[in-house]
Amino acid sequence: MNIPEVKVPRVVIVGCGFGGLQLASGLRNANVQVVMLDKNNYNTFQPLLYQVATAGLEADSIAYPIRKIFKNQKNFHFRWCEVTGVNEANSVVETSIGSLQYDFLVVATGSTTNFFGNADFESNAMPMKSVTEALDLRSRILQNLEEALLTSDIKQQEALMTFVVVGGGPTGVELAGALCELKKHVLPNDYPELDLRKMRVILVENSAELLGAMSEINQQKAKKYLEDLGCELWLKTGVAKFDGKQMQIRDGKILQTSNLIWAAGIRGVPIAGLPPDCITPRGRIVVDEYNKVASTRNIYAIGDVAMMPQPNFENGHPQVAPVAIQQASLLAVNIVRVQHHKELVKFVYQDKGVMATVGRNKAVVEAGKLKFGGFLGWFAWMALHLMLLVGFRNKIVVFINWLWNYINYDRNIRLIIRPFKKDKV
Amino acid sequence: MNIPEVKVPRVVIVGCGFGGLQLASGLRNANVQVVMLDKNNYNTFQPLLYQVATAGLEADSIAYPIRKIFKNQKNFHFRWCEVTGVNEANSVVETSIGSLQYDFLVVATGSTTNFFGNADFESNAMPMKSVTEALDLRSRILQNLEEALLTSDIKQQEALMTFVVVGGGPTGVELAGALCELKKHVLPNDYPELDLRKMRVILVENSAELLGAMSEINQQKAKKYLEDLGCELWLKTGVAKFDGKQMQIRDGKILQTSNLIWAAGIRGVPIAGLPPDCITPRGRIVVDEYNKVASTRNIYAIGDVAMMPQPNFENGHPQVAPVAIQQASLLAVNIVRVQHHKELVKFVYQDKGVMATVGRNKAVVEAGKLKFGGFLGWFAWMALHLMLLVGFRNKIVVFINWLWNYINYDRNIRLIIRPFKKDKV
Repeated sequence: MNIPEVKVPRVVIVGCGFGGLQLASGLRNANVQVVMLDKNNYNTFQPLLYQVATAGLEADSIAYPIRKIFKNQKNFHFRWCEVTGVNEANSVVETSIGSLQYDFLVVATGSTTNFFGNADFESNAMPMKSVTEALDLRSRILQNLEEALLTSDIKQQEALMTFVVVGGGPTGVELAGALCELKKHVLPNDYPELDLRKMRVILVENSAELLGAMSEINQQKAKKYLEDLGCELWLKTGVAKFDGKQMQIRDGKILQTSNLIWAAGIRGVPIAGLPPDCITPRGRIVVDEYNKVASTRNIYAIGDVAMMPQPNFENGHPQVAPVAIQQASLLAVNIVRVQHHKELVKFVYQDKGVMATVGRNKAVVEAGKLKFGGFLGWFAWMALHLMLLVGFRNKIVVFINWLWNYINYDRNIRLIIRPFKKDKV
Repeated sequence: MNIPEVKVPRVVIVGCGFGGLQLASGLRNANVQVVMLDKNNYNTFQPLLYQVATAGLEADSIAYPIRKIFKNQKNFHFRWCEVTGVNEANSVVETSIGSLQYDFLVVATGSTTNFFGNADFESNAMPMKSVTEALDLRSRILQNLEEALLTSDIKQQEALMTFVVVGGGPTGVELAGALCELKKHVLPNDYPELDLRKMRVILVENSAELLGAMSEINQQKAKKYLEDLGCELWLKTGVAKFDGKQMQIRDGKILQTSNLIWAAGIRGVPIAGLPPDCITPRGRIVVDEYNKVASTRNIYAIGDVAMMPQPNFENGHPQVAPVAIQQASLLAVNIVRVQHHKELVKFVYQDKGVMATVGRNKAVVEAGKLKFGGFLGWFAWMALHLMLLVGFRNKIVVFINWLWNYINYDRNIRLIIRPFKKDKV
């Protein structure tokens, strides 16, 4: 694939998410050639995808061109392609644009929506794990409201205006909150002819609590925030079926809804050709404490797709950005140590805390013993996300959008950008 | 289609461009019901589409949700649909979501790319008249550069890096200038492995001059600006064929290029069912001096799609935004006058001048006897476009992007947002 042949080892990184990005930039001064492969030409700031889906931010604010990030890094090469497999015996990675020899291969492919094999959900529910999916979701939500305006069949209208979010983790909570705010502040102006009291936002969660990773006090707070916003919480509820028009829950009850957003689980995206016994049922790649894939010589995995069993983390670490970033930082160090035949450093996860935002002035934050919420939590959430966003221009544009939305109780990007009529109900 | 029946006359406007927007808001206080029909749920600020196509602005900055524009206008109704025809005898307009009775029908459907019946161009050349087309063009340009990086066939590489813009009007000039700036300031950092001296930007124009509507001094200035930016000007050149890989000009010469952007002409988009003898060969609807379609009782046309022969404008007015806006303003007045059986006011076009921007500090402006260019022209161009943009948030975001690009010689939105592999060469 036309990568210059050099005398230093070649580190091939598959996937430019939080982990891949951190690793490539951590190898900036290392004596290696870095080759990044990704099927998008941009890095996605996934924590804000739900704001793209709910018309608060435009895609460009949370997507950043990979070539631009690394424009000053001399040992960096990017190729836009899909990785189709790895030939471990020959240390070759196969892609849609040809094959490439590697000295170190790092799988940082992240995770995708897990429909748990349910073809029904897969074809009818809406996922939200990529920029294109978030844009599509935005269009679908708006399209269904336009449809609701047209029908004189009350039942159909209610179905079009019923939004079900499945999964009570941070993504589900944030999305449900954002939908409630759309309902409350934005849509009444847009659709004066629709009786928006009929619009329902329902958050469905299998377990008895939202935000399983948080303390009880914050779980309760998040629940109250959502209820205050008018969100219906269906806890201890499993979804059995969804055909695009109606959803059936496990106890048999049926709900008419055209909108089911699936945030109920993720699975790793491993590469074909890895030793099968190192892949878990949820698609994660089992690695040792140096992120090396067991039984391979020079293949590593980091972030969501990696599963490193450690004390307190028997089933691997949480699939969140900080883990990916920390593993990537350490791997950059260890790759250099391998070159110098030095002893490697074991990974130890530093838990920096968790946070989730429900709406304006409504967020929950936990860092060690510190637990807070309300305006302060919301402000901390905003500040942290602004800080982590890639690119100064993006920070400014997102900040202005948030300021604007805050002052005006607004969401500006209510655009249906897709071919007319496609996928209409 | 579920529009409330009221006792006041119903004005149905088809198309929410410059004209439709102005007319609907001009009827704000009139004793009518306004129904706007558009196949997009947003208004597009077309003069800046070329900046979306060249990664300078994101779509949301130049597209504005129609419902949001009119959220405080009580007599306004919007329906997202495609208009399929008009039944003049019954005063009914037919759409994809049902039919609707009107008292006044205003066709403000604007114009689309004119390939002059050449199927070859239509399927292989890239148009740029809508948000989706501009986004697609952005992706195509970036995709072809990624391709160029992969091939070892020099001829193919040159073809991928050769950008031909056909049409030397403002759109063509602005697009060619923006591509030259991409080549000069942005791409060398992104593609250090590509020899960007091989990248060619060629502006092809049938006549002997660019910017036909301008004075000679400004035509010369625009020419010089483009040449300074490294643009090749092929004047007095007609394109005969383009198959997606090579272009043949009328004298038989062949150029290898994968990128042909068509900005060489537009045609009106009339509605089926209008009297055939009022449609010109270029799809414009002949109207009288009150914008009424000849031989109809209550159908009007404004803007690009209308053709009003007047002294000095035997073939209609130029197809530019100011004409549409002025006709719409007057029609709003005249619709009220019709209701009150008052004498109607004839349209008189106030030519406010023309402008085109080639690049940073490079623009040409003409207003009456005033002719200027350079930094001052560029600044005037920016100020005017910022002023005309719909929405305060959009003004700020566009301003920041421009400021950013100006200071950093940058274009930020270099995202390929489309399914992987689709349309790859």
